[in-house]
Amino acid sequence: MKLSQLFTKTSKNVPAGETSRNAQLLIQAGYIHKEMAGVYSYLPLGLKVLENITRIVRQEMNAVEGQELIMTNLQPREIWETTGRWDDKTVDVWFKTKLKDGADVGLAWSHEEPIIETMKQYVSSYKDLPVSVYQFQTKLRNELRAKSGIMRGREFVMKDMYSLTADAAQHEAYYNSVIEAYKQVYDRVGLGQDTYVTFASGGAFTQFSHEFQTLCETGEDVIYLHRGKNIAINEEVLNDDSLKELGIQRDELEEVKSSEVGNIFNFGTDKSEKMNFTFTNEAGERKFIHLGSYGLGITRVMGVVAEKFADDKGLVWPEAVAPAKVYLARLGDAEAVVKQADELYERLTASGVEVLYDDRDTRAGEKFADADLLGIPYRVVISGKTVAVGNYELKARTAAEARQVSLDELTKALGITT
Amino acid sequence: MKLSQLFTKTSKNVPAGETSRNAQLLIQAGYIHKEMAGVYSYLPLGLKVLENITRIVRQEMNAVEGQELIMTNLQPREIWETTGRWDDKTVDVWFKTKLKDGADVGLAWSHEEPIIETMKQYVSSYKDLPVSVYQFQTKLRNELRAKSGIMRGREFVMKDMYSLTADAAQHEAYYNSVIEAYKQVYDRVGLGQDTYVTFASGGAFTQFSHEFQTLCETGEDVIYLHRGKNIAINEEVLNDDSLKELGIQRDELEEVKSSEVGNIFNFGTDKSEKMNFTFTNEAGERKFIHLGSYGLGITRVMGVVAEKFADDKGLVWPEAVAPAKVYLARLGDAEAVVKQADELYERLTASGVEVLYDDRDTRAGEKFADADLLGIPYRVVISGKTVAVGNYELKARTAAEARQVSLDELTKALGITT
Repeated sequence: MKLSQLFTKTSKNVPAGETSRNAQLLIQAGYIHKEMAGVYSYLPLGLKVLENITRIVRQEMNAVEGQELIMTNLQPREIWETTGRWDDKTVDVWFKTKLKDGADVGLAWSHEEPIIETMKQYVSSYKDLPVSVYQFQTKLRNELRAKSGIMRGREFVMKDMYSLTADAAQHEAYYNSVIEAYKQVYDRVGLGQDTYVTFASGGAFTQFSHEFQTLCETGEDVIYLHRGKNIAINEEVLNDDSLKELGIQRDELEEVKSSEVGNIFNFGTDKSEKMNFTFTNEAGERKFIHLGSYGLGITRVMGVVAEKFADDKGLVWPEAVAPAKVYLARLGDAEAVVKQADELYERLTASGVEVLYDDRDTRAGEKFADADLLGIPYRVVISGKTVAVGNYELKARTAAEARQVSLDELTKALGITT
Repeated sequence: MKLSQLFTKTSKNVPAGETSRNAQLLIQAGYIHKEMAGVYSYLPLGLKVLENITRIVRQEMNAVEGQELIMTNLQPREIWETTGRWDDKTVDVWFKTKLKDGADVGLAWSHEEPIIETMKQYVSSYKDLPVSVYQFQTKLRNELRAKSGIMRGREFVMKDMYSLTADAAQHEAYYNSVIEAYKQVYDRVGLGQDTYVTFASGGAFTQFSHEFQTLCETGEDVIYLHRGKNIAINEEVLNDDSLKELGIQRDELEEVKSSEVGNIFNFGTDKSEKMNFTFTNEAGERKFIHLGSYGLGITRVMGVVAEKFADDKGLVWPEAVAPAKVYLARLGDAEAVVKQADELYERLTASGVEVLYDDRDTRAGEKFADADLLGIPYRVVISGKTVAVGNYELKARTAAEARQVSLDELTKALGITT
């Protein structure tokens, strides 16, 4: 994409009234727009980041046989009453409204109940199990406070998956495969090294549920980390029983700030008992379905990546999620410079490499500042000087210095194939 | 995809309480699930149809230089008050709710006001114009009645695009390019032949706006069609002035039922005056921006396609929107049959041809009925009989009879490349 055509522009000014670093930078770089506290729209570059994260998550959910669908925002009161979760005293993040005829409807903050209602139509035998469905859905939650930018929104995109299994063993096997799929996701988006499977409180059916917590100075959570065993536990379950169960000592734990980038939960047969969801097993007996629920905040992951890697110059995207791989800055409009820059842009594009081509009539300093603020992994500069010596200037966003490279080196570094 | 793994199943029973043909068939075929009147979730095959339509629309909007973004569902009261559209007396389809602090918020039924608010930050000069942005967004509208299945939802996916232009001439040039882009979309999804650019009432700035109306027996609209001139007008503007303006006689018009699959509108400078959105022209003068708005209902297009082409056996998808191109039915589980069917499945998949592989242990009659109900463009049957003679049985969904073809003919007919 040519920057002369992109409608967004960067801003040097920190947006007023925005205290979170991720939102400040994303707004300054033109990735997002704040509609109100905790409610952000995603502009072209921001949407590209979301799509990149979505693609990775979709691949990993498909790899564990998840089947994609899309549920609705509008929720009828009745199905949530069957499990007691319509009541604002039980669930305090509902947005609710009314149809013209006065009937109550809620705006979906989660989807366990409607998923069960849907799957009831299709699942009746052990032959239908296990089955797992997922969606990328815009959830609405009436959060009291929303001060962490896109790390905690009143409106946000979540991947939520639900598994239906025949018994505890089948559930556990699937649940463990999802833990591995989640690890793949965090590895691929660049958070793997700092993301810990964290023991959290379970429910009636399991001692623990699991959160995926990424170390992050501005995260809203606190976890207790055992670096040696590569596990963490959260505050709720920091007690003698849990420590004993996990075979760790309290003084081996390090208290760190973190952000919850995923959580997975075993509902056991709790919900299917309340909603009367059964199947027939091999012996012909009616049994309740086991339900697992697996959340992963797409917009939150984007916020955490933005927040964690940013430096004093701006955003720093890992290649897999960056809106483009290359920031191509053309300095000046000398014919030879324009020609070489246009050619490189076309070759990169033809090779499937996403490029932001800074073809604007602005100063070099502004272009460099924008390349840094936007956080594009590689910056290539073409100027009268580079053309004269037959070289290109290449700088990784994370490198201290640019270096002069030949076309051959550039081709290899950027993956040009045409 | 193998049907033995797909969780949805077809049903022979017309769903109770569903009067619209499109929703009846889509529910029976397992494409959608009804959450409540006018609110449907999209199951894997339904989601594939939506994605196919979305991909086509995205390509055509990109072709007219549209830049994709995604706005929010939650809408602050204030920006809609500036144009008088917060009031329920002016806009009667609002769903409204409240934040914890009591502040009013609406759920987006359209996005002109927030788009202007966003674009104000980026557009200030004639050099920034024209610019056009679009999104695929889930809109919520509190419709009094919702009896047309996915053709009119309380929750539905819409592509809405907004153009910002410097003056009437620049607006008109862009507006006309969108008319052509819309025609491309309807052609590609299979509705082109029956879709008419329809003159509807304009606003303060233009005599007419334009609707795209598709002939459809169960549509909610009535239009007056001039087949000779290939245009139509809607009831609002059926008067002597309009007829004169368009150079047609009342008795040349045919009254037909139709469904509105798109509409485009010139707001002129109305909204930018109300919201004080100006730019500096080449002479250094402040001028109000011209706004165009271009809607296209993604879920409605799916509903109209379903409704229009269905026959007494079920759905009939045009190839471009079908969830798969081929329904591969394997009859029986003789080793040679399984081997040949597996091989064909793999070759089709490797060629990028989407296949529903019916590898289930069900009767031939059931497989044929499902192939018809699901509406997949081509059905291929592999049985003991076809294997014995070295042929394949091929039937287009719209053909009366199946025919025996050689592997060579099959390869050509289905676009197998590997």
